[in-house]
Amino acid sequence: MRVIGVDPGLSRLGLGLVDSRDGKTAVLEEETISTSPSLPAGERLAHLHKELSSAIDRWRPDAMALERVFLKSNAASAVSAIQAWGVSLLAASACGVEAHEYSPAEVKMAVVGSGAASKEQVRFMVSKIVGEPDPKWTIDGCDALAVAICHIHSSRMRALGRRPA
Amino acid sequence: MRVIGVDPGLSRLGLGLVDSRDGKTAVLEEETISTSPSLPAGERLAHLHKELSSAIDRWRPDAMALERVFLKSNAASAVSAIQAWGVSLLAASACGVEAHEYSPAEVKMAVVGSGAASKEQVRFMVSKIVGEPDPKWTIDGCDALAVAICHIHSSRMRALGRRPA
Repeated sequence: MRVIGVDPGLSRLGLGLVDSRDGKTAVLEEETISTSPSLPAGERLAHLHKELSSAIDRWRPDAMALERVFLKSNAASAVSAIQAWGVSLLAASACGVEAHEYSPAEVKMAVVGSGAASKEQVRFMVSKIVGEPDPKWTIDGCDALAVAICHIHSSRMRALGRRPA
Repeated sequence: MRVIGVDPGLSRLGLGLVDSRDGKTAVLEEETISTSPSLPAGERLAHLHKELSSAIDRWRPDAMALERVFLKSNAASAVSAIQAWGVSLLAASACGVEAHEYSPAEVKMAVVGSGAASKEQVRFMVSKIVGEPDPKWTIDGCDALAVAICHIHSSRMRALGRRPA
């Protein structure tokens, strides 16, 4: 199973492609799409949409996993990230890729084993799960890898649950 | 000046086309794009994007005016509306139409003269500004007409401000 992970954001949108086969998990791709705050929001969303659609086209994932954005104190940044999340769902739908959404706590629980883990713990565990990290990995791309790994774990758990006793 | 107004929402997205010429304001089009809650969010956003892009293509507006979505108690509904807002900005950008955003209070102030006006007062004043309302107008389409009228008023005010004394 090939899963594209997405960590939505308007200034930086993290992307990661994870492959899971025979119980082994490997990172195939990892990148951050950036947009300039000096551009109108529509142009920035159009850039994210184009780059994300192009990545889906090149990488041909079986599914997309997205981290849900929650509304905290920084409302303006949350609104932009929610718009980027919507545009990501649109790109997945246009490419015929099923989208699955996970809360930050679900991602932390799947990767670290605790819903209250820090971002640093998540990044450390991602590198452990897939072997040594590439020093060129971006912070947002690594967060996207964590969401993809969360979806792979969840899919395995659901498959186990469906197996007859 | 032809302005397409957008009242963003995932279940119902209001659209309205207003023309302003020689101080007269007329409604040219008005509709609501609906999506079914039984479909995945990505498909619903794709439907909104397709219909909105098609309306921009048919109506050829000079500008788009959108009502900003605020985060109130109903967080799930606000998140969906913010995603629809992002997809609307994307459609405007792809069609080369400049987008302008207004808060609900700015729309009420422009149409009724009070930022605390009720939705009913806004709808009553929209029908007064453009003449008698069409009984087939939808609620969300009428809200979109109000945003378009708000942009026309704001543009007139800005033009007056730039005029030499």
